[in-house]
Amino acid sequence: MADPVVDDLRAFLDGSRAEVRDECRNLEPELFGTPPEPLDVDAHRARVRRQLARLAETPWPAGGFPVEQGGTARFADSVTALEMLGHADLSLLVKAGVQWGLFGGAVSLLGTDRHHALLPEIIAGRLLGCFAMTETGHGSDVQGLLTTATFDPATDEIVVHSPAPAARKDYIGGAAHDATVAAVFAQLIVDDENHGVHCVLVPIRDAAGRPEPGVTVSDCGPKLGLNGVDNGRLLFDHVRVPRTNLLGRYGDIDDDGRYRSPIASPGRRFFTMLGALIRGRISVGGAAGAAARSALALAVRYGDERTQFAKPNSDEEVRLLDYRTYQRRLLPRVAESYALAFAQSELVSAMDDVLSGRAATEQDQRQLEARAAGIKALMTWHATETIQECREACGGAGYMWANRLASLKADTDIFTTFEGDNTVLLQLVAKGLLGDYQETFGDLDTLGIIRFGARLATGTVLERSAMRGLAQKIIDATPGRPDEPPFTTRGAQLRLVREREEHLVETLAIRLRRVSESHADAFDAFNRCQDHLVETARAHIERVVLEAFAAAVETAPAGEARVLLDRLCDLHALSTIERHKAWYLEHDRMSPARTKALTARVNELCEQLRPDARRLVDAYGIPAAWLTTEMMSDHAAGYW
Amino acid sequence: MADPVVDDLRAFLDGSRAEVRDECRNLEPELFGTPPEPLDVDAHRARVRRQLARLAETPWPAGGFPVEQGGTARFADSVTALEMLGHADLSLLVKAGVQWGLFGGAVSLLGTDRHHALLPEIIAGRLLGCFAMTETGHGSDVQGLLTTATFDPATDEIVVHSPAPAARKDYIGGAAHDATVAAVFAQLIVDDENHGVHCVLVPIRDAAGRPEPGVTVSDCGPKLGLNGVDNGRLLFDHVRVPRTNLLGRYGDIDDDGRYRSPIASPGRRFFTMLGALIRGRISVGGAAGAAARSALALAVRYGDERTQFAKPNSDEEVRLLDYRTYQRRLLPRVAESYALAFAQSELVSAMDDVLSGRAATEQDQRQLEARAAGIKALMTWHATETIQECREACGGAGYMWANRLASLKADTDIFTTFEGDNTVLLQLVAKGLLGDYQETFGDLDTLGIIRFGARLATGTVLERSAMRGLAQKIIDATPGRPDEPPFTTRGAQLRLVREREEHLVETLAIRLRRVSESHADAFDAFNRCQDHLVETARAHIERVVLEAFAAAVETAPAGEARVLLDRLCDLHALSTIERHKAWYLEHDRMSPARTKALTARVNELCEQLRPDARRLVDAYGIPAAWLTTEMMSDHAAGYW
Repeated sequence: MADPVVDDLRAFLDGSRAEVRDECRNLEPELFGTPPEPLDVDAHRARVRRQLARLAETPWPAGGFPVEQGGTARFADSVTALEMLGHADLSLLVKAGVQWGLFGGAVSLLGTDRHHALLPEIIAGRLLGCFAMTETGHGSDVQGLLTTATFDPATDEIVVHSPAPAARKDYIGGAAHDATVAAVFAQLIVDDENHGVHCVLVPIRDAAGRPEPGVTVSDCGPKLGLNGVDNGRLLFDHVRVPRTNLLGRYGDIDDDGRYRSPIASPGRRFFTMLGALIRGRISVGGAAGAAARSALALAVRYGDERTQFAKPNSDEEVRLLDYRTYQRRLLPRVAESYALAFAQSELVSAMDDVLSGRAATEQDQRQLEARAAGIKALMTWHATETIQECREACGGAGYMWANRLASLKADTDIFTTFEGDNTVLLQLVAKGLLGDYQETFGDLDTLGIIRFGARLATGTVLERSAMRGLAQKIIDATPGRPDEPPFTTRGAQLRLVREREEHLVETLAIRLRRVSESHADAFDAFNRCQDHLVETARAHIERVVLEAFAAAVETAPAGEARVLLDRLCDLHALSTIERHKAWYLEHDRMSPARTKALTARVNELCEQLRPDARRLVDAYGIPAAWLTTEMMSDHAAGYW
Repeated sequence: MADPVVDDLRAFLDGSRAEVRDECRNLEPELFGTPPEPLDVDAHRARVRRQLARLAETPWPAGGFPVEQGGTARFADSVTALEMLGHADLSLLVKAGVQWGLFGGAVSLLGTDRHHALLPEIIAGRLLGCFAMTETGHGSDVQGLLTTATFDPATDEIVVHSPAPAARKDYIGGAAHDATVAAVFAQLIVDDENHGVHCVLVPIRDAAGRPEPGVTVSDCGPKLGLNGVDNGRLLFDHVRVPRTNLLGRYGDIDDDGRYRSPIASPGRRFFTMLGALIRGRISVGGAAGAAARSALALAVRYGDERTQFAKPNSDEEVRLLDYRTYQRRLLPRVAESYALAFAQSELVSAMDDVLSGRAATEQDQRQLEARAAGIKALMTWHATETIQECREACGGAGYMWANRLASLKADTDIFTTFEGDNTVLLQLVAKGLLGDYQETFGDLDTLGIIRFGARLATGTVLERSAMRGLAQKIIDATPGRPDEPPFTTRGAQLRLVREREEHLVETLAIRLRRVSESHADAFDAFNRCQDHLVETARAHIERVVLEAFAAAVETAPAGEARVLLDRLCDLHALSTIERHKAWYLEHDRMSPARTKALTARVNELCEQLRPDARRLVDAYGIPAAWLTTEMMSDHAAGYW
């Protein structure tokens, strides 16, 4: 039975990419959904290979590549399709992300024409690759990688080598079995000079699946989840590849054997190369959001039907979602899932602008990187915490494999770590916030940031340009009135969240200046600001996310759906502020009476939204076949 | 290399039950540890059967039963042995807990002489049983179970029946395969009168493993974790068992076919029967604590060795645990793990007193139940959150099955739900706190608690008896001084934590009185206090736990270990207070300047404790063989 409010909400959520979402919704659930029972590692990997082959028949892999490279330049659609796979078997999402996002992305964005010739085979899934960046000894610290790629002018070859066990490439998706080529990140050494980390294509196994000479491959074996992905390890013993295998867009070896780069600063070059690869991060965030929405859809439907304990003096049993503790557990997370979905949609649009060249400045690129890092961190933590809460909210049923929460939980758990550890990412965001990112490219180390904080605090520059005009208009239209609680209007909510961010950035800058002026050990001094740095980044992204939600409400056509969305945005704003209640009290931004009233209002909003909870999760638009669970068919059969 | 400080710390933690702990530490790790690779459901179940048989050869199963029933009455030792199994394969813990704690416990504590005759076979593991309480439709609400046990005087039998699909027994450990007898909880109907939930022994399968006539058995199939346990479902179609199969200690049918009970009130009878079974809850809490300690030991060792990023102007890479964010993630949890371990030890001693008859009053029993419920809730949430944090702290390595965090996470996840959903348990604790628990036994429903809150708030009775004398002495010896921050002394810490509990209890009572006086819908009115109820219980248990830690420090002999323990207790106390910073500010118990100083002090304590972090986790006394992981052998082999 169609519910126009659900349809409207779904249209808002789908946004400008409703078409690709609908196409994904029509994928065969029996092939793409979580396997009907847990498979052993080999069977699961085989299934994912079949899924990948099927996906290669769709238009989305080509969407991730420019037309001149054999693609269709539908960047946003291609990332949105990956997001939708977050509702399906997440192993496929990772497998597809590795093949087209990371491996294909490296070839496309770091390579030159001669490498782009490979892309049709990569897009078609006939040439399978892996992305060999992380080493056992170095993950987040990519600049610290040990693997070397040494140019040998005598043979015009590059020698790829693991100089120590710690140079072993680790956790590499596709390396254990399927990939025939690796995009290997290594220190590029030309004429005894280290030019920093570059990427080289290295064949790792032949068509029969045998490792190439000098390549030692091993299997990471079973994992907590994502067992459909063949993560493996690679060690290189002086493996020789042609010089032209260097993906040389940002740094190449010319025919005379000399290193050439269009970017003079090694630091800047490194960050430019890494920055080219943000799509993976954006896709992971998107898929995490989808997985969290799946979990919320399951838990809200269960809580909407399952009863527990009779009402006083009555035989009528109470539905779980009528209990305040349940509402508190689930509804603020539903609100957050909307907020993050809107923020993700904006991020994908910004990515599309950059990749298509519509937004071409360095500033556009840097903003996109910071935004992508921050939203990935908040989105993946949201997923981990939300899925956990949903599992607990479904009690014993939530623990049964047949009810899907178990696999959602296990599969997404690593999202907080891969494509950048969240804590490290937030520190990058904070550094970006502190000012003119570009100027530090020459020396972006921990001391650099300190000097940098010093420069900043003496002068100006809280970066405000990210503050959207619409949010500012809402705030301006809402003059503070001393006689009303300061959180009932959207403008007041936005102002509170923004004030926190601004204060954190300003005080961080001041602390860093003090640190740089003192004679303390530079590391110790910096380290003592680390929690401040992380909190600042979080506050920044929370503001960005709330603004995205507020903007979506503002632009929605009037009607019942908008009223609901508006209330949901209130809940999101107020539960964000409530989470930082101690901060608002400590900094005298809210009085105790107001923070108490705030909590009361959050409770009230949960009560008001409860009757629409089911609609809110129906509007996610997750195909019914992908949400089929034993617990709900048990319900239909009268087992509860 | 022996470290006397580690030995001393371990002795404090082991407490009075060091001997049984050491015996468990010597169990064969290759049999009892997590399987070296994930097994499929059948293989894992078979392994757990072998483990159970081996465990039956140890003295601990018999310890759980009185001498006159064929046991050795070493109650505390038997529960401590289960706790130690929390370091091993957790499927065995659950399997053993079902066999001896729940099934054996029901026979021992709810049965009479004729049932006790079975105990030697149960203790020896030759008669395997299951504990069939939960139904698909009713879990936490045991009084709402649908299964009936109807006395048929014509044949002197009891007819056990599932009157509806929702009466299906669900998630029952042992039911899918191994158990031959079920302790079935059902509404006992004698002469058309329902006497409430009682427990009846029902044979469910014969020696050949075939279901008994009228019994339908099915398998819950794969789960997120604990796949060594054969959870199953049971449906009964008019299954007849002799009248004497009723476990009749608290309610029996006499030879004349009349129902008799030593307890007149049905409500009180029900809670007495349930109260007899708290051992399971205590064991789950203990094992959760052990699992969290395993995870912390793994993560702290990793963080103590693994480096990431070089220091400014240096090649020296920084160890993870030197970063503030890492210290913040792990060290307060190490402190909490100590606090909870001391609280658990006290709880086990109190249980021993009750079960052995040394503490025999109804008040002793009720206090024990409340304490067990509350500590189970906090301990299992501590485990879920801590293991998650440890997984993230170990990055990609934490996700690999070979590094154990994956299985710890998956196996313990359900602990927050089984043996009582944590949220429901905390509400029970809060109700207990509100006063004289006994008097409400006649009508302990949601309305009862409201009436009850009314009575309380008009009169007296914040239950203070649980406040230990020693804590009071510490507080008394610490007069508040206006010129010093109010959190540096143990007495001030205890006072802050106690004040919060007291305020929450008092205001809860007042709210409940108002509610009972208003004419609002009773359920709605009560429901609006539900979050307050849960928070009150949490505050109460947090106080109990901190007092247990403080008492352990007080009683420890002077020396380096005590100094360390004292500092760790500071960290635990202050991070507990910090978590509720907003509350202290809202209620004007601390000024903003002081809460800021508090956070600074928590950071400082983390720094001070960091050099001893490894010692603190070594002192858990987890056998090296049970902590063997690929990541640490990789480290030894130079891979990082």
